[in-house]
Amino acid sequence: MAKDKKQPRPKPVTPKGFRDYFGAEVTARTEMLTKIAGVYHRYGFDALETSAVETVEALGKFLPDVDRPNEGVFAWEEDKDWLALRYDMTAPLARVAAQYRNDLPSPYRRYTMGPVWRNEKPGPGRFRQFYQCDADTVGAASVAADAEICAMLADTLEAVGIDKDDYVIRVNNRKVLNGVMEVAGLSGDDKEAERGIVLRAIDKLDRLGLEGVRALLGEGRKDESGDFTKGAGLGGEQADIIMGFMDAKRDEGAATVSRLRQLVQGSNIGGDGVAELEDIAGLLDAQSYGSNRIVIDPSVVRGLGYYTGPVYEAELTFEIEDEKGRPRNFGSVAGGGRYDDLVKRFTGQAVPATGVSIGVDRLLAALHAKGRTDTTAQGPVIITVMDRDRMADYQSMVAELRNAGIRSEVYLGNPKNFGNQLKYADKRHSPIAIIAGGDEFDQGVVQIKDLILGAEIAKNATLEEWKDRPSQYEVPRDEMLAKVREILDKS
Amino acid sequence: MAKDKKQPRPKPVTPKGFRDYFGAEVTARTEMLTKIAGVYHRYGFDALETSAVETVEALGKFLPDVDRPNEGVFAWEEDKDWLALRYDMTAPLARVAAQYRNDLPSPYRRYTMGPVWRNEKPGPGRFRQFYQCDADTVGAASVAADAEICAMLADTLEAVGIDKDDYVIRVNNRKVLNGVMEVAGLSGDDKEAERGIVLRAIDKLDRLGLEGVRALLGEGRKDESGDFTKGAGLGGEQADIIMGFMDAKRDEGAATVSRLRQLVQGSNIGGDGVAELEDIAGLLDAQSYGSNRIVIDPSVVRGLGYYTGPVYEAELTFEIEDEKGRPRNFGSVAGGGRYDDLVKRFTGQAVPATGVSIGVDRLLAALHAKGRTDTTAQGPVIITVMDRDRMADYQSMVAELRNAGIRSEVYLGNPKNFGNQLKYADKRHSPIAIIAGGDEFDQGVVQIKDLILGAEIAKNATLEEWKDRPSQYEVPRDEMLAKVREILDKS
Repeated sequence: MAKDKKQPRPKPVTPKGFRDYFGAEVTARTEMLTKIAGVYHRYGFDALETSAVETVEALGKFLPDVDRPNEGVFAWEEDKDWLALRYDMTAPLARVAAQYRNDLPSPYRRYTMGPVWRNEKPGPGRFRQFYQCDADTVGAASVAADAEICAMLADTLEAVGIDKDDYVIRVNNRKVLNGVMEVAGLSGDDKEAERGIVLRAIDKLDRLGLEGVRALLGEGRKDESGDFTKGAGLGGEQADIIMGFMDAKRDEGAATVSRLRQLVQGSNIGGDGVAELEDIAGLLDAQSYGSNRIVIDPSVVRGLGYYTGPVYEAELTFEIEDEKGRPRNFGSVAGGGRYDDLVKRFTGQAVPATGVSIGVDRLLAALHAKGRTDTTAQGPVIITVMDRDRMADYQSMVAELRNAGIRSEVYLGNPKNFGNQLKYADKRHSPIAIIAGGDEFDQGVVQIKDLILGAEIAKNATLEEWKDRPSQYEVPRDEMLAKVREILDKS
Repeated sequence: MAKDKKQPRPKPVTPKGFRDYFGAEVTARTEMLTKIAGVYHRYGFDALETSAVETVEALGKFLPDVDRPNEGVFAWEEDKDWLALRYDMTAPLARVAAQYRNDLPSPYRRYTMGPVWRNEKPGPGRFRQFYQCDADTVGAASVAADAEICAMLADTLEAVGIDKDDYVIRVNNRKVLNGVMEVAGLSGDDKEAERGIVLRAIDKLDRLGLEGVRALLGEGRKDESGDFTKGAGLGGEQADIIMGFMDAKRDEGAATVSRLRQLVQGSNIGGDGVAELEDIAGLLDAQSYGSNRIVIDPSVVRGLGYYTGPVYEAELTFEIEDEKGRPRNFGSVAGGGRYDDLVKRFTGQAVPATGVSIGVDRLLAALHAKGRTDTTAQGPVIITVMDRDRMADYQSMVAELRNAGIRSEVYLGNPKNFGNQLKYADKRHSPIAIIAGGDEFDQGVVQIKDLILGAEIAKNATLEEWKDRPSQYEVPRDEMLAKVREILDKS
């Protein structure tokens, strides 16, 4: 190969499916995560941070809708091992619970937050790196642990700024569903594939409606683009039983429970599941989580194959407009459930566990939609540079402001064009610009420009009342700090 | 291949060179990063979070001491592109500055914090994922930007809990070093390899001492294990000039500057570098950063090849014991400098930039050494379970405590063995256990056990004064919260 002396320039682009987060996008998320961590901590959960990289062996193959090995993860070979980026927070937790089983308290209650990676086809609004924020209790068989997670989820949503009326947490139990499957003749190892299809079909109820789910229970379904998804191939009676289960929700929790009890008649596991749901509802009532906030809803199944008991999902019920301007519910922002077999993969011993995962970006989008986040952070006070040789003076001004806790900076670009300095202040959303040249230094004063007021005056220039309001003040140098404070306090 | 029905269990292990962080290890770091972000924000820097994954092309080959392509990074092929985990925060910033150059304010001041990954041989205390916390100003040619970063670094160290007397920030200028190289006859494209070896040798002064550096300037150096590192092959006179430079530091900044001016006589770039150092010192003086905190020190070069102007390094000067029990300075926790060519890689246009990177784990270790972090987080109040059927009552107790902001939980393991419940409380460092069984419920009371006082009493059981102090209190149920508060306020 000939050596190419003049290499082409690299392209400055984020890889497909990845993105950058700027300013308030970062700080709003950090603030939200801090509030969530506060609730988790108050509930007695301890922080855990595992590394982004795991062995493929430890991660296992628990990604939804993925069949080929290593599909869905970013993986690479190292010596003879394969390493990969974690695709969720549950697989690393199972590994930790097994690895440190002799040292960790039991039950082990941990929360964690951070990015996860999925090697999927990127699409609009679908990214291959996104945040999750999880809390799990490992080693607690009691459904009190599940009830607690549901209560904590409700507290968390309210702590970040979702109103009581704007969310509902739906609770179901896989054992009830398994009971229904048993009644429908879908138990047994040879029916695993069908059960998987049924699960995924129910999970898509929101998107496909009852008719779409029914089609997937039978022969299959052709979507709008013409793509065909093979169904579970159930007979009409079998499908009726499943559909009856999805339709079992009643206005009152007690009525839903008794309808479910009918549906699983003859199935032990189904009966256990219904009893657990009753327990959960009772515990939550004792803590005053009314059934308007946490409800039993048989249509919630959560797609993941590994759930073994209670499953839960937080849905935001306020309306937003979809891409075509039609109103629709905001939808799910968090979900989880009980998975008693994940640690067993490593140790051979069953370890009961339950936990929730919050879709951080979804929840943040919801807070944006409700106007609960600062979308533009307040910019710094800008000390403009009129005279390059006075840089030390400008620096001592900024030091004074910063020592008083005021966000501020000296303009550090090329100071020649003063207009550029004010444009910069504008781009930074600066509330104030400070101006001092030779004359000001001679007289021991500074000019302080109220940029927010100035912008309003410019906008309303024709109004009489604005004309008399000055937006620039000349003050003695030693009153600079006080005047800046006064303007900031007003705005 | 025969299908192996019984797959071996996966091993629950972190990949080599990676580790998990538990509880206070996570929260102490988060607290420290929050304080650092506060200072950066006050200085007018905006947050940026890029994704962990970049194209290998965009990352470039700027890892220290790495020659082979893709060496040092975790990389994988996707279609025809190579993707990799970022190895620092500077390469992604250069990519962002180029990608969004028409939208970002200029200068662009950003801070960022997060993990970076290095595919290096792991060793004791050397991990392949670690945190960095950077602040950079892109688009400011003035050394006022470098001075500002040094001032901010000083403020940051003090904000996280390092005393004024316990650190020093050393400043140097690559242009001075380049001037010295010129004087020593090491300028010119054909001497690039030699210059690289010289840079890396000076950078190792701390570890190798003057003699070791001298050896690397000449033929090379054999280390204790017998490994030979090839040197720059300089003649005696050339090496003398370099060593004179390293020895140029005087007690007074002004004396150091005039010694440097002598050494670079006849080199234009060297003269420029000395003038810049004078400017920086002047600006910092104007902000009252005395020369005890920020000093000019020619021995600081920072190994990375991409620096083009001022370089700086924060060293903690208090002593710790090394692995053999000998006292030594804690050493470097942060460093950076000016790199005017990184954005140019993408755009062809030079963009001046300067910035600092804090080694988060090193700084955190320093805070631990100084006792400035909570190493054990306070555990939750534990409500023990004496009677399984009273779970709803226990849950309403815990809800009361949590609503009052008190970290607390109901024991959710198997309640059969009460001793296990108290052992659990001990393992969680719980301050209080609450006990209520049938008798207590009948009488409308609870038992509150002060576990911290109890542990002290147990330790000092023979002392007369402890005997009379009760560590368990029976209080009416409706006074539970008040009593818990009282005990927590004491401890």
